[in-house]
Amino acid sequence: MASMAALFVKTPYPSHSLNKIPTTHFAPALKVSISLPSGRKAHPRLRVSSGLIEPDGGRLVELMVDEPLRDAKKGEAFALPTIKLSTIDLQWVHVLSEGWASPLRGFMRESEFLQTLHFNALRLQDGSVVNMSVPIVLAIDDSQKHRIGGSTEVALFDSDNNPVAILRDIEIYKHPKEERIARTWGTTAPGLPYADEAITHAGDWLIGGDLEVIEPIKYHDGLDRFRLSPAELREEFTKRNADAVFAFQLRNPVHNGHALLMTDTRRRLLEMGYKNPILLLHPLGGYTKADDIPLSWRMKQHEKVLEDGVLDPETTVVSIFPSPMHYAGPTEVQWHAKARINAGANFYIVGRDPAGMGHPVEKRDLYEADHGKLVLSMAPGLERLNILPFKVAAYDKTQGRMAFFDPSRPQDFLFISGTKMRTLAKSKETPPDGFMCPGGWKVLVEYYDSLTQATSGTVPEAVAA
Amino acid sequence: MASMAALFVKTPYPSHSLNKIPTTHFAPALKVSISLPSGRKAHPRLRVSSGLIEPDGGRLVELMVDEPLRDAKKGEAFALPTIKLSTIDLQWVHVLSEGWASPLRGFMRESEFLQTLHFNALRLQDGSVVNMSVPIVLAIDDSQKHRIGGSTEVALFDSDNNPVAILRDIEIYKHPKEERIARTWGTTAPGLPYADEAITHAGDWLIGGDLEVIEPIKYHDGLDRFRLSPAELREEFTKRNADAVFAFQLRNPVHNGHALLMTDTRRRLLEMGYKNPILLLHPLGGYTKADDIPLSWRMKQHEKVLEDGVLDPETTVVSIFPSPMHYAGPTEVQWHAKARINAGANFYIVGRDPAGMGHPVEKRDLYEADHGKLVLSMAPGLERLNILPFKVAAYDKTQGRMAFFDPSRPQDFLFISGTKMRTLAKSKETPPDGFMCPGGWKVLVEYYDSLTQATSGTVPEAVAA
Repeated sequence: MASMAALFVKTPYPSHSLNKIPTTHFAPALKVSISLPSGRKAHPRLRVSSGLIEPDGGRLVELMVDEPLRDAKKGEAFALPTIKLSTIDLQWVHVLSEGWASPLRGFMRESEFLQTLHFNALRLQDGSVVNMSVPIVLAIDDSQKHRIGGSTEVALFDSDNNPVAILRDIEIYKHPKEERIARTWGTTAPGLPYADEAITHAGDWLIGGDLEVIEPIKYHDGLDRFRLSPAELREEFTKRNADAVFAFQLRNPVHNGHALLMTDTRRRLLEMGYKNPILLLHPLGGYTKADDIPLSWRMKQHEKVLEDGVLDPETTVVSIFPSPMHYAGPTEVQWHAKARINAGANFYIVGRDPAGMGHPVEKRDLYEADHGKLVLSMAPGLERLNILPFKVAAYDKTQGRMAFFDPSRPQDFLFISGTKMRTLAKSKETPPDGFMCPGGWKVLVEYYDSLTQATSGTVPEAVAA
Repeated sequence: MASMAALFVKTPYPSHSLNKIPTTHFAPALKVSISLPSGRKAHPRLRVSSGLIEPDGGRLVELMVDEPLRDAKKGEAFALPTIKLSTIDLQWVHVLSEGWASPLRGFMRESEFLQTLHFNALRLQDGSVVNMSVPIVLAIDDSQKHRIGGSTEVALFDSDNNPVAILRDIEIYKHPKEERIARTWGTTAPGLPYADEAITHAGDWLIGGDLEVIEPIKYHDGLDRFRLSPAELREEFTKRNADAVFAFQLRNPVHNGHALLMTDTRRRLLEMGYKNPILLLHPLGGYTKADDIPLSWRMKQHEKVLEDGVLDPETTVVSIFPSPMHYAGPTEVQWHAKARINAGANFYIVGRDPAGMGHPVEKRDLYEADHGKLVLSMAPGLERLNILPFKVAAYDKTQGRMAFFDPSRPQDFLFISGTKMRTLAKSKETPPDGFMCPGGWKVLVEYYDSLTQATSGTVPEAVAA
């Protein structure tokens, strides 16, 4: 635990929050990151544990070049036509490189892109079907396409001009932006965060191919050690003798309602006969929209929740899911679930309106609240996954704590929305006792305080993630 | 053939064309309609022919009430809350009643609607998957929903207040119009013909349930006898000892390029070892956009093509497909193919940009020309269907006839687009000899002439279908 704390103190937080880093102690659950193997070489092939669900396609795809070959590949990269990756592109390289999207072996070619758009699934050569609901594609513009010319390979470089990967046996095809947006989000209204960030102004072509990733993707933000790959997570679950793994995707602070749900899920799994269900508490670490709470602050908040004993560290693994966020509701929740199968989870907790948001133009939610759960339960390729519906928790005034909502006595319950929570934290007010552990709440207040300081006393509605 | 001709002379054409009905002689291929059984009772269960592909779900769903029960059902209908059907709604009742959408048993409930939107396929109780790419849904508005109240059944009435069907075990759910349009067409641009006609101004709710159709749907337009149900088509194919059935969906006049393709397809099937491949020439008979040529004129044109011997009547069945047209490209072509499986076709000819159209707002085609074929070839639930790609035919100036395009001598070929064809017909010009049989061309000229007369000398770009 001491080493974890040391780890965390070194975290280079965004400058606006540097003034108030608390000395934190990570709970044992996060200990998993201490025992990381030094390289991916330890996982050339997945060790299949009797208790863990098989990856999609039967075998975890890892696209990292073996260490002895890296220099040669780097040299090759410098000799190829190059594509400069955006931040989100690099996150997708990360996702692909570790096999979250298994059995995908690189950015989608057109046949995969079309199957994703139309069917949310890919048919494999053996006739089996795996889920794949969001396009994982790389856009290039006319001039990049021109520079590639007749080459069958390109090199992908990061924003610092370091070679990241080689894309082989490439296929370049048209980027039907409007259709991609319409079929992914079910709307083309302006203001979809991911579309604005990564599609609308992107190039008119997509380039697919097989990826060879030269080095593991690192962010040097002090959180890299919490970015466990599917292989590393599987190793950790196996080490803990998990006979069930239940995943909880989140991009918000954890309050005691969430904690109650996760604890209750474990209780139900034990009742079902599982001996050692392990929770994968899996905050999303890639692109999020400007008014979401940044990953670094969320990680601090999650740490407090474990430290305060709200969740049991012995049966919880906290790790970061490297995917960018689409906010594509029923379409995206399938991706969130599918990626966790590849990390070994066979149970998935799905909430009300997962990956949903307000309609960017109209005054309503973009998706019906129950469509995410319904679509997930019927999605091709996810038949093996057990979907656990989210029970509604609210603040029970009679007990002074979060409890499952009891419709026979609605007057006793207080619903604290995300908006309400943010408003309270911004104004440094204290939520009802028992809503969130005090340490976790303090992190939220500090986050909003840091924004206030950074903007000379005005709290912006939207801040850069 | 004489009886067919008699049949056709009685056809009540739309009034604007009554002045010029030629005395027509249908080729033997259309004889199929003479030997129609008097009622659907002859097909309580599909006779499975060794040569015919199985319907989706294993058995053709027919939703017609047995004749002795019809009066009782009518009486029941008058006692139930009612929904008035639009023209397109009634076409869908027709489609459902005859099992084109097997195994659907009525208008979609929400789980079917969501699977269609997201996956273009339905998972059946036995775990198998059937294709279903366009929503077959019935919209109602707030006041209709209010009138239905707690009833579990509703009666569906046509525009003349005749009871058409009873919908049982109903489910009412929200009609997410924007999402439905976006996920079906890949755009939400205004001006999509089907969306303008049947979605945008439709009610905010959808009602699903099991259909009981009281009487066969008839249009009394002189063409009802050509509207063979899947069961009737299967019977005809069986009667002809077909060992392969290849379907050609169309909503345009047949020119000699089409004919060449169909003839060539039969030749290829014979080469593959089939002894008696039968062509199902299957014009779409439901809603089409205003500037498409109306069904009655297209049927006259098809008749001429058979009469002139361009297609072999002995190996061709001409029938009308009762579905409305979506113009939804890659999404809709799956529906067109799937419905033909239910009618017994195991080969499907797919053209360039099937069910495509111009983008309603931008100056480009709505879909990439090859996406329809690609998506169709990968579509879930259509694995059993053999997709035959459309070979490009053009007018070969050296031979004075339509021929398959030879890229080694492009200068010899003339491409006559649909727009070019319409322009020629409107101005009563003659296309190059060999482009279309003279009788068929005359029908087109007459059609545009009838429009000119109806509008006092001006040819409108768009006319009511």
